[in-house]
Order: sequence, then structure tokens, then C-alpha cells
Amino acid sequence: MNNLKALGRHILVEYYNCDLEILKDPTFIEREMNQAALAAEATVVESKFHHFSPWGVSGAILIAESHLTIHTWPEYGFAAVDFFTCGDLDPWESFAYLEKVLKAEFCESVEIPRGLMAKFREHGGVDRGEMSYKLERKM
Amino acid sequence: MNNLKALGRHILVEYYNCDLEILKDPTFIEREMNQAALAAEATVVESKFHHFSPWGVSGAILIAESHLTIHTWPEYGFAAVDFFTCGDLDPWESFAYLEKVLKAEFCESVEIPRGLMAKFREHGGVDRGEMSYKLERKM
Repeated sequence: MNNLKALGRHILVEYYNCDLEILKDPTFIEREMNQAALAAEATVVESKFHHFSPWGVSGAILIAESHLTIHTWPEYGFAAVDFFTCGDLDPWESFAYLEKVLKAEFCESVEIPRGLMAKFREHGGVDRGEMSYKLERKM
Repeated sequence: MNNLKALGRHILVEYYNCDLEILKDPTFIEREMNQAALAAEATVVESKFHHFSPWGVSGAILIAESHLTIHTWPEYGFAAVDFFTCGDLDPWESFAYLEKVLKAEFCESVEIPRGLMAKFREHGGVDRGEMSYKLERKM
């Protein structure tokens, strides 16, 4: 549980100087993004990836606890990745897994809370009481 | 073109006090997310949505210029939405479209540049010269 009392935790990551060949390989990227989801013990619901011409992979994985996305620019050795999780999952587990398999030399990241509960109360005009973390969202 | 010289622009939005019935409707959400992509003149590549039990919709749209995602919590009247675009697209067009159709009373948003070019140069150790904006990424 995170202290900010938010529905979700969203990590945005810039992976620099990754292995260029890996970033071009849609099969590898899809498999390892799914493995990254599992590294955080997420429940994968849908996985959709696309290979661009001449290169570059984009993909999204819907998990019961929100999503993971990736966009690769092999020409810059760069990948922009998002890990958005709800509940007790730790998205940094996915982050660490992917950092290793992409062979990123550097990365920068920021975590942003999503769905702050105090703001539901503020904007809703009522105190809705203790809020659930949507763990029942699994299929 | 954005002044920060980044590959992409990523808007994270919290839509509060939306129409509760709309947030429960997976068909509506998928259709309107696709319309939101088109509102920014994006090229839709893949669209994948999932309806949770008892309610809540998650979805991702891969566009040639990156992605849109949504997660709805009808019980809080809340939707967390991301608009990530590259090139000359204006993701705020998608934002404005969705704000209207979700009937959001309040929203909060932040724009984060993705893939800062100065950092490619810094981390890559070389000046890679003028960089393209991946408009050739279309299928």
C-alpha cells in the first residue's frame, strides 16, 4: 500500500543506450514486457504489440491492475516505458526486470500517484469513506 | 513541434465526477477513446479494451504516434487517462474531446516530455545531429 492514498502508482521511465538489436525485435519486446508484468505479480489481461517499418516496437499490456506500455526507438537506443499498477503491486519490480533485459546503460524515472483519494473527497463534495484498491478487478 | 525538443508529449489526466453510467460502458469507452485519438489526427494501429467485473473499463489504443490508455472507476466517477503522442500531433485535442464526452466536472492534468533529445546526446556521448520525430512510423 502506498502512503499517498492513491488508487494507482504510475512510473514513467526513459531507458537510454539499450541494446539496439533488442529494441528492434518485436517478439523479444513482447515476451519480455509480459515477463516484466509477471515480475510485479501482475495479472495479464490483454497484450498487443506492433512492429513499425523500418523499425521500432510499440506495445501495451492490460493487466488487472492497470497497464504497461513501451515504445522503442532503436535508432537512438531509447525506450519510453510506463508501468501503471494498482493495489499492493510494486511497479518497480517490473522496472528493474526490464532495465536488465533491455541492457539499458542509463535510465531516468518518475513515479506519479494516480487517483488521489483526497481529491475524490474534495471534488466529490462528500466523504466517501474508506476506499477500496480495486483488487477485485481481476477477471 | 514542441520547444523542449523531445520525441514525444505525454499527458496524464485525472477526470473527476464523470457520468457514472458512461464509465461502466465498455462499448462507449472504446468508441470514444478511438474518437479522441482521431480528434488529434492520430493514426490508430491497435485498440484493445477490457470490461471488469462488476464494473470498470481498461483500454489501450496504439497509435502510429504512441498511445492512449484509460482506466475507469465508476464507483468514484473517476477515469485515469494517458495521451502520449509524437510528432506534430497535439494531444490536448484528445484531452478536450474526452473531457466533453465523459462529462467530467473537474480534471487535473500534467504534460511530461518523453525522450529528451539533449539527453540522448548526453548519455550517448555523441551528438547524433538533427533528430527525426518518427513521423515515418506509420505502417
